[in-house]
Amino acid sequence: MGKLKVYADRMSQPSRAVLIFCRFNGIDFEEIKVDISKRHHLSPEFREVNPLQKVPAIVHGSFNLSESHAILVYLASAFPGIADHWYPSDIFRRAKINLVLDWHHSNLRHGAVNYVLDTVLGPATGRPLNPKAASEAEKVLLSSLTKLEYIWLNGEGCFLLGGSQPSIADLSMVCELMQLEVLDEKDRSRILSPYKKVLQWIEDTRTATNPYFEEVHNILYRAKKKFEQQRSRAAETENEPSNKMDGHSKM
Amino acid sequence: MGKLKVYADRMSQPSRAVLIFCRFNGIDFEEIKVDISKRHHLSPEFREVNPLQKVPAIVHGSFNLSESHAILVYLASAFPGIADHWYPSDIFRRAKINLVLDWHHSNLRHGAVNYVLDTVLGPATGRPLNPKAASEAEKVLLSSLTKLEYIWLNGEGCFLLGGSQPSIADLSMVCELMQLEVLDEKDRSRILSPYKKVLQWIEDTRTATNPYFEEVHNILYRAKKKFEQQRSRAAETENEPSNKMDGHSKM
Repeated sequence: MGKLKVYADRMSQPSRAVLIFCRFNGIDFEEIKVDISKRHHLSPEFREVNPLQKVPAIVHGSFNLSESHAILVYLASAFPGIADHWYPSDIFRRAKINLVLDWHHSNLRHGAVNYVLDTVLGPATGRPLNPKAASEAEKVLLSSLTKLEYIWLNGEGCFLLGGSQPSIADLSMVCELMQLEVLDEKDRSRILSPYKKVLQWIEDTRTATNPYFEEVHNILYRAKKKFEQQRSRAAETENEPSNKMDGHSKM
Repeated sequence: MGKLKVYADRMSQPSRAVLIFCRFNGIDFEEIKVDISKRHHLSPEFREVNPLQKVPAIVHGSFNLSESHAILVYLASAFPGIADHWYPSDIFRRAKINLVLDWHHSNLRHGAVNYVLDTVLGPATGRPLNPKAASEAEKVLLSSLTKLEYIWLNGEGCFLLGGSQPSIADLSMVCELMQLEVLDEKDRSRILSPYKKVLQWIEDTRTATNPYFEEVHNILYRAKKKFEQQRSRAAETENEPSNKMDGHSKM
C-alpha cells in the first residue's frame, strides 16, 4: 500500500483526532502539514489530495479519503492489530458508535465550532463579533453537552455508551471539546463546569491516550496562552488613565 | 430478534430513506407513525424509544437506534440477503460511502433543510420569513450541488462514486433533495436545473427503487399541491381590486 500520509493542521480538532489515533496505535505514517491560516488547503496540490479542500485527509497508496470519522473507521479496519474497542466489530455496539458519530456533526460540532468562532477565533482573524450567532451556537453547545452528560455518559464505564475503553467516538468528540481551551477561562468554566461527567470523560480520554494526546494538543495550549495574553493586554489598555474619559481637565 | 419497528414521519426525508430501504429490500417491519406536526416525537412514550426525540428511529428486539445513516448501515448488515451495492463490504468502497454520508450532514442536509425551512415550511408554520438565513442556506445548498455534480457524480456509472447500482448514500441524499419539491416550481427549477447530472441521478435513483420510492413520497406530492394552491390563492387575493391601493377614488 505504501506508507500512510496524513494531511493535517493540528489547529483543527478532527485533524488532532486522526493524529492521536495513528500515534497511539503505532501506525507508521507521515504527517504533512496543511496550514489553514496560510490557505494551503486551497492550493492546487492539496486539491489533488482532497477535492473538498478540507483537513484532515489521508493518502494510502493510490487510495485517498477525507472526513475524520470516515478516516478513523477506515484506519481501524485497514490496519492490523488495532484493538476492537476503538470500533467494535459487534454489530450492535458498532451501530451505537455510528449513531453517536452521526449525531456529532449537527450537534456538538456545530455548537462548539460556531461558539469558538463567534467569540474568539472570528474576532482574532478580523471577522466582526456576532453576539446573536454566538448565543445561538451556545444553545446548541449546551444542549449537546446535556445529551452527553445524561444520555451517553450514563453507562457503567467511564467512556461513551458505557464503554470501559475509548472508541473513535470518544476521541473525536473529546478533541472537539478541547477547542474550548481557547475561550476566556471564566467563559469555558461557565459552559463546562455544570457537566461533571463530561469533565471527567475529557480527563479519562486524555489519560487513556497519553502521551500522544498532550503532544498533539501542544499547539492548542500555545494558542490558549496567546489569546490569554491578548485579553490581558486589552484589559490593561482599557485601565490606563490616558484611555479613560478624563480628558476634560486637560483641555 | 422480534419484528423490526420503524418509527417514522413520512414528511421527514431521513424517515423516507429508511422506509424505502426496508420496503425495497423486503424487510418485514412495522411502520409506526410519529407525527412531528402534532409533536408526537416529544411524547414520553417516544422518548423511551429514542431519547434524542427525533425520527427516524428503530426498535429491533431489545435494541434501539436512531440517526438515519446509522440505521441504514445497521439494516444493511443485520438483515441477510441485502445486496452488497447498498453498503459494499469492500473496505475502500465502504470508506468512500462513509465519507459521502459524513459530508451530507454539514453540507447538503444543512443547505437543503434550512433553505426549505426559510422559504416555505417556516412561513407555513407561522415562523417569520428570514431572507438572510434563506440566502445563506442557498449558498450551502448550491455549493453542495456543485460538489455532487462535479466530484461524486463524475464517475462511469449513474450513481455516486461511479456506482452502477445505488448505495445507501444515493438513497439518503436523493431523499434529501426530494424535499425541494415543496418549493415554488420556478424556484426549484432555478436551483436544480444547472445540475444536469444531479437531475438525472434523482431520476435514476427513483427508477431503481420504484414502486417504493413513489409510494413513500406520495405524502410529499400532496404537500407540494397544498403549497401550490396556497401560493395561487395568495396571488389571486393580491390581484383582487379591493386589495389594491385604489381606495382613494371611493373616499
